[in-house]
Amino acid sequence: MSNIHFINPKGSMDQLSHLEVEQLTQTAQSDLYQLYRNCSLAVLNSGAVTDDSRALLQQYTDFEIRLVTRERGVSLELHHPPESAFVDGKMILNIQYHLFAVLRDILFLNTAQQVANPQESKHITNQVFLILRNAKALIVGEHPNLVVCWGGHSINDIEYQYCRQVGLELGLREMNIITGCGTGVMEAPMKGAAIGHANQRYKNSRFVGITEPSIIASEPPNPIVNELIIMPDIEKRLEAFVRMGHGILIFPGGPGTFEELLYILGVKLNPENKAQHLPLILTGPKESADYFATIDRFIGDVLGEEAQKLYSIIIDDPVNVARQMKKAMEEVKIQRCQTNDSYGFNWSLKIDPRFQHPFEPTHENMANLALHFNQSKMDLTANLRQVFSGIVAGNIKPQAQDNIARLGKFKLKGDRTLMEKVDLVLKDFIVQHRMKLPTGKAYEPCYEIVE
Amino acid sequence: MSNIHFINPKGSMDQLSHLEVEQLTQTAQSDLYQLYRNCSLAVLNSGAVTDDSRALLQQYTDFEIRLVTRERGVSLELHHPPESAFVDGKMILNIQYHLFAVLRDILFLNTAQQVANPQESKHITNQVFLILRNAKALIVGEHPNLVVCWGGHSINDIEYQYCRQVGLELGLREMNIITGCGTGVMEAPMKGAAIGHANQRYKNSRFVGITEPSIIASEPPNPIVNELIIMPDIEKRLEAFVRMGHGILIFPGGPGTFEELLYILGVKLNPENKAQHLPLILTGPKESADYFATIDRFIGDVLGEEAQKLYSIIIDDPVNVARQMKKAMEEVKIQRCQTNDSYGFNWSLKIDPRFQHPFEPTHENMANLALHFNQSKMDLTANLRQVFSGIVAGNIKPQAQDNIARLGKFKLKGDRTLMEKVDLVLKDFIVQHRMKLPTGKAYEPCYEIVE
Amino acid sequence: MSNIHFINPKGSMDQLSHLEVEQLTQTAQSDLYQLYRNCSLAVLNSGAVTDDSRALLQQYTDFEIRLVTRERGVSLELHHPPESAFVDGKMILNIQYHLFAVLRDILFLNTAQQVANPQESKHITNQVFLILRNAKALIVGEHPNLVVCWGGHSINDIEYQYCRQVGLELGLREMNIITGCGTGVMEAPMKGAAIGHANQRYKNSRFVGITEPSIIASEPPNPIVNELIIMPDIEKRLEAFVRMGHGILIFPGGPGTFEELLYILGVKLNPENKAQHLPLILTGPKESADYFATIDRFIGDVLGEEAQKLYSIIIDDPVNVARQMKKAMEEVKIQRCQTNDSYGFNWSLKIDPRFQHPFEPTHENMANLALHFNQSKMDLTANLRQVFSGIVAGNIKPQAQDNIARLGKFKLKGDRTLMEKVDLVLKDFIVQHRMKLPTGKAYEPCYEIVE
Amino acid sequence: MSNIHFINPKGSMDQLSHLEVEQLTQTAQSDLYQLYRNCSLAVLNSGAVTDDSRALLQQYTDFEIRLVTRERGVSLELHHPPESAFVDGKMILNIQYHLFAVLRDILFLNTAQQVANPQESKHITNQVFLILRNAKALIVGEHPNLVVCWGGHSINDIEYQYCRQVGLELGLREMNIITGCGTGVMEAPMKGAAIGHANQRYKNSRFVGITEPSIIASEPPNPIVNELIIMPDIEKRLEAFVRMGHGILIFPGGPGTFEELLYILGVKLNPENKAQHLPLILTGPKESADYFATIDRFIGDVLGEEAQKLYSIIIDDPVNVARQMKKAMEEVKIQRCQTNDSYGFNWSLKIDPRFQHPFEPTHENMANLALHFNQSKMDLTANLRQVFSGIVAGNIKPQAQDNIARLGKFKLKGDRTLMEKVDLVLKDFIVQHRMKLPTGKAYEPCYEIVE
Repeated sequence: MSNIHFINPKGSMDQLSHLEVEQLTQTAQSDLYQLYRNCSLAVLNSGAVTDDSRALLQQYTDFEIRLVTRERGVSLELHHPPESAFVDGKMILNIQYHLFAVLRDILFLNTAQQVANPQESKHITNQVFLILRNAKALIVGEHPNLVVCWGGHSINDIEYQYCRQVGLELGLREMNIITGCGTGVMEAPMKGAAIGHANQRYKNSRFVGITEPSIIASEPPNPIVNELIIMPDIEKRLEAFVRMGHGILIFPGGPGTFEELLYILGVKLNPENKAQHLPLILTGPKESADYFATIDRFIGDVLGEEAQKLYSIIIDDPVNVARQMKKAMEEVKIQRCQTNDSYGFNWSLKIDPRFQHPFEPTHENMANLALHFNQSKMDLTANLRQVFSGIVAGNIKPQAQDNIARLGKFKLKGDRTLMEKVDLVLKDFIVQHRMKLPTGKAYEPCYEIVE
Repeated sequence: MSNIHFINPKGSMDQLSHLEVEQLTQTAQSDLYQLYRNCSLAVLNSGAVTDDSRALLQQYTDFEIRLVTRERGVSLELHHPPESAFVDGKMILNIQYHLFAVLRDILFLNTAQQVANPQESKHITNQVFLILRNAKALIVGEHPNLVVCWGGHSINDIEYQYCRQVGLELGLREMNIITGCGTGVMEAPMKGAAIGHANQRYKNSRFVGITEPSIIASEPPNPIVNELIIMPDIEKRLEAFVRMGHGILIFPGGPGTFEELLYILGVKLNPENKAQHLPLILTGPKESADYFATIDRFIGDVLGEEAQKLYSIIIDDPVNVARQMKKAMEEVKIQRCQTNDSYGFNWSLKIDPRFQHPFEPTHENMANLALHFNQSKMDLTANLRQVFSGIVAGNIKPQAQDNIARLGKFKLKGDRTLMEKVDLVLKDFIVQHRMKLPTGKAYEPCYEIVE
Repeated sequence: MSNIHFINPKGSMDQLSHLEVEQLTQTAQSDLYQLYRNCSLAVLNSGAVTDDSRALLQQYTDFEIRLVTRERGVSLELHHPPESAFVDGKMILNIQYHLFAVLRDILFLNTAQQVANPQESKHITNQVFLILRNAKALIVGEHPNLVVCWGGHSINDIEYQYCRQVGLELGLREMNIITGCGTGVMEAPMKGAAIGHANQRYKNSRFVGITEPSIIASEPPNPIVNELIIMPDIEKRLEAFVRMGHGILIFPGGPGTFEELLYILGVKLNPENKAQHLPLILTGPKESADYFATIDRFIGDVLGEEAQKLYSIIIDDPVNVARQMKKAMEEVKIQRCQTNDSYGFNWSLKIDPRFQHPFEPTHENMANLALHFNQSKMDLTANLRQVFSGIVAGNIKPQAQDNIARLGKFKLKGDRTLMEKVDLVLKDFIVQHRMKLPTGKAYEPCYEIVE
Repeated sequence: MSNIHFINPKGSMDQLSHLEVEQLTQTAQSDLYQLYRNCSLAVLNSGAVTDDSRALLQQYTDFEIRLVTRERGVSLELHHPPESAFVDGKMILNIQYHLFAVLRDILFLNTAQQVANPQESKHITNQVFLILRNAKALIVGEHPNLVVCWGGHSINDIEYQYCRQVGLELGLREMNIITGCGTGVMEAPMKGAAIGHANQRYKNSRFVGITEPSIIASEPPNPIVNELIIMPDIEKRLEAFVRMGHGILIFPGGPGTFEELLYILGVKLNPENKAQHLPLILTGPKESADYFATIDRFIGDVLGEEAQKLYSIIIDDPVNVARQMKKAMEEVKIQRCQTNDSYGFNWSLKIDPRFQHPFEPTHENMANLALHFNQSKMDLTANLRQVFSGIVAGNIKPQAQDNIARLGKFKLKGDRTLMEKVDLVLKDFIVQHRMKLPTGKAYEPCYEIVE
């Protein structure tokens, strides 16, 4: 196989004007190039069997991607791409689509026409909508059937089989799947649903993967994903999930999954969302029951019964999970009709700005978090999401660890009872092997509570 | 039937963001309202049987159209619309699509995002492309099959039947039709092609009507049109025709049709377009042969054999016309492949700026036209198109006639032989009943030639 | 164009076994050949503009058709076919389908596998079903939308325009059309409906033509027909109409149309059909009101109010006709669901054997008809249909006229009042120019009433 | 869930005439009932996870199936069906289709219309064609892409993964799969191909399972099968494979697989098939190389190089297997065009009657087999297929073993060298664990060679 390939566009990049191609070519040569190149490489690897993506990427140091201007639009010129993306010299069609999804979401949306980095809440939502519409992910006339699946990437085999079984039951009931992009919970329900769809001769399978630039390289889309969308950052990615999805499933995971739960709880606790239908089910095999027990106890203790009512926990019963979701789809449909809202994008859902903007876990930001019971549940949830985000960073992310080495532990001003409960959750996660720690070290909190 | 109707979007306006709806609503309340309202009314009348559009419009003085914001996008609220647009209280689907094509092309393209009134040649072409793409008129993967049909609105019955017959033969060969929007030549070939398509069980019938705001009110889309596009002005409309179409047929018409011929001849005479395939056939029944004789004589005398070679004239032979066009489609296809150009939009065609900008027939502009043989054929054609445009205005358009009454005849500085030939064409058109003159008056030139 | 063409199969004849091809080839060489050849020629003429089919057929005395055995099935070899069936040497697709419909219905259904000439009522119905299923005319899942249009071939222009207008209104309401195959009422509603469908962007247009061997040659399918079915005889053709159709429209016609009315009235008068929904509307322009007045008076006088209630007469109101039909479609749908009957084929409808078997108008058969009021309405209707059939034959058909010349007038034993009313209908038809008589002759009854 | 279910038809059984339903209902009450009931139960179990089908069937002793006559056709009434066939009380669509495939192939084809048990070669082929056409398995216009996969049901995990990998590579090249119906090699390539199709967004996946009544109960269709066809006996099943398939893959298996190889070799050795393209590839992982070595040695020794040239052996190279097949598809296409043969059914292939009729392994039949080198290769192959069939029966089938106990070993008259080679193959299969023997017994031949 030759080392240079020319690839024609598929999907929404197949009709560009000459000016757009010009702008795109300029953008491709800007400092976005490295990001663009890496995301493209990740996608070209999605056919790869191995899971060690970092290693794979290092294999392709001489990989390059260039935009080629044609009279009719744009083509891509690939140098030394992974062979696994090709069959007999022809790129696998799914990968070809994904490759142009990267062009679309990384480069095209960053050319002059686009609103750069909006700050106001409604402009953020607007941008999320524009990106999804541009990706043709909002399908007019499609009834509610998108189930968001959240959970961990490195789950054990029992959990993997369970997720797959839930996917099968969802697929048998003609529901589609949205996940992040990668292995574990990101893949298992899609695999199951694909079989379920085949059994029902269901032809409109959607396996949507929503990712963002900082994670796509380490978690390339699994081979089942047939719609790839790259959102600009974590918070817009979460917003895309909850506005596109019609129901949310949380499978076993780690602290990251717990943050996602706090996100959706914070959204659902918003008083303006009282009338919203957005079913939330936590589920896993009986072997994983303790994970959900830890979570449920914390929510109950800290946010109370009101918050616990916002989800249900179903242990070891894929059929029941799928039935609940199917029933919920009908309710979502009725509610959207009543509010004249679109099936494809939930405009009515209110998302507080604190759930739309990224949180930077500096010592100052951590110190300023309001960690007490004397505030609304939604506010408390917003702060808890941030404190967990910071603690996880302090535990495992190099930059935060450096800061702690330099400046000492995070100083959290907060209610002592509250913080003990936070501490307990983290300890449970360690016992349950849900959180990776530096090898050979006992867990030592990266924070201390000050009065 | 109630007098207020709410109409949901069809086509490309069915997925708007909240910000877009906001902008659209503002635009609708701007000074564009009157234009928007009139175009909408024209479209609502397209089911009407009568041809006297002005009278019809005057019937609906209490017609109003308002944008209604919904959570899911935009709806239209119509007050006192023509009943003929409805069947049992439900709008005819074709009209519903056209109604949102008006919203799209008149209002949506004038909201903040759009490039306002571009001047540079390549930006004009870019805008033409963006409007067509936004109208979903550029279909990826469709092979060349679009035949542009130009000619008069008020042709006689023999000519109407002939045009219909040509349309039938085109349709039997699975070609589609683009015309302006209205009756006569705008309708007859579409009607014929519809029958031809039915006979061949051809399912992808495209009957594209390209119009512009100043004419849509008097020439509402005929009921066969299934894609309506409203370009901002006459020149962009002409550019849309020649970049979208794969072949051009000119049927009998008046001086307006002759101007269109000069337009396409000017484009084809551009030396950079030498390699272009864009077949041009002039055709009519034998009863209309003199019209084409007049034209051909003038072109031969003034622009020479080189220009005459750019078209062929086929009298009274619909089968032959359709065969030539079918053959040409294959050649167009091969050429587009070779230049890597799109089948849907001919980017390679060069259009000189003088064919992209409107010409205002003031006394000064007319006096400045270079009317002599001592220039390139393309330049001469550009000037001739403008001189004809001015003379026609001087003959029949109120504003130009007022100016002449006030300032005297247009003073044209030009070659006397050339001007005599211009004069002869106009006289022929009068004899052939191709040009409407004020009743009861003999033809008197509105210009004089000065040295 | 060469004089020999090889045509590959389209539609249901494209998958024959070798044994079937063998049988077919034998059948084609049997005494069915002439019938098969003439029907094929009729179909090949359906693109022809003229209406004088007999003349056309005489033009093609050297036309021949042969079956050619291929490894993959059967092809046709045509010698000297009409040129109008071809475009640039390629057969028009619609005609190609029709040509294989002739092969299917004339030859294939007469090969060994088929039940020859069934006599028992339920076997006749079974055969009607098998022929329609074999023609793929029974579409699973399609909602009731088929309107049968009956009426004359040689209607005047006002009536033609009216039928077309009714067709337009039916088409705008997404109904499809079944007629016999030919011009006049057989064509006009289809033309109108085609435009209506286009306006509604309705893609599933069905223009079904049901004919039989003795009339196809003189009435080739009009160019709009896109499903051609050839039933073995008139009675099976009528049964196909009423079991496939979901509503029946009767337009102006002659005595033949009146016989069709008597047929459907006889079916509807069957007490077992009381619960059936099969709407029957008689309609025409105001200029044709007298035709319906004649009919209605006769039905009222002879069959009474009960029979008159089985139809409605709508004069000069196409919109109303279409609305009534649309409403009826919903009722038909509900009823079929309740009786678990198919939408495609009305199994529940009872048809008395006398409406399933042909009536031969011999002197003996005519003399044996029971023509008095002392019988059930259904029986009387059956007898009236036969007496009209005989009288029309006596008036215009050569064989019956010869018999009368030889044996004297038909002797009818019947109620004098009843026969006077029959006489009156015929006289009205003559006044209304609905019945062709030998030129220059006054109408003289071909029957006499004996005690 | 209630214990009685009514199921409406899907697929080709949804349009039956009243007479057909009547006949069907009679047939269902005949002695075919038990067969029909068991096949239906097997199909209803195809969603079941376990592989022990016999045990499963014994679970459902109170299962019953009845035909219910409806006005519109036929429904099924199921008593105590397996729950796994339903999702929330609704039958899984794929199973519903299979259930009516059983009705179609077991009952419908046995009603009066069908040719019962044809003997002549061309009538057997005709019946195979009619069954496949009636199952809508012959798709007009589909290019050659069907790969037959033969091999064992109880293969080891390495072989399963290998078969799946070959299926993936076939699927990535847009080929479809035909197998028998069950697990092992019957399932693995389909699973792989399903993923390959998804990666290429290929929408026309065909996973055809061809089975016959005596094996369907023990090998219900795996859940991937989306077209189920039940042929009347083993030989017609084999004929269906080779006339429908465009290429044949043989994976590891046991003596049954070896018999299938002898079948296709016998067909290919027929001198009349010299020009046929029907690629035959033997493939497996390197761990299974000895199986193919055994086979290849035997073929070489006994049938010679000529026979060896009719297949290729590819060890441990799925990509190469798929490439060879893809290339062959093109050649098949060209050849079928040249001979004017259908892509869907290979009429030209000659199959000798000895490969069309069942072989009964009685002592007499075995004694009469001609086992010597003094005959054509095709004849020898036909005899070898029968001798293997008999020996396998003598080894493991109760009836044959009883006969041997009663009458002594099979007496084979044949060439001693030849028989030694046969013996060697069987011994190899035992060493390779390819043949199940009564536990704890050493292999003892069930035959002896007599002069």
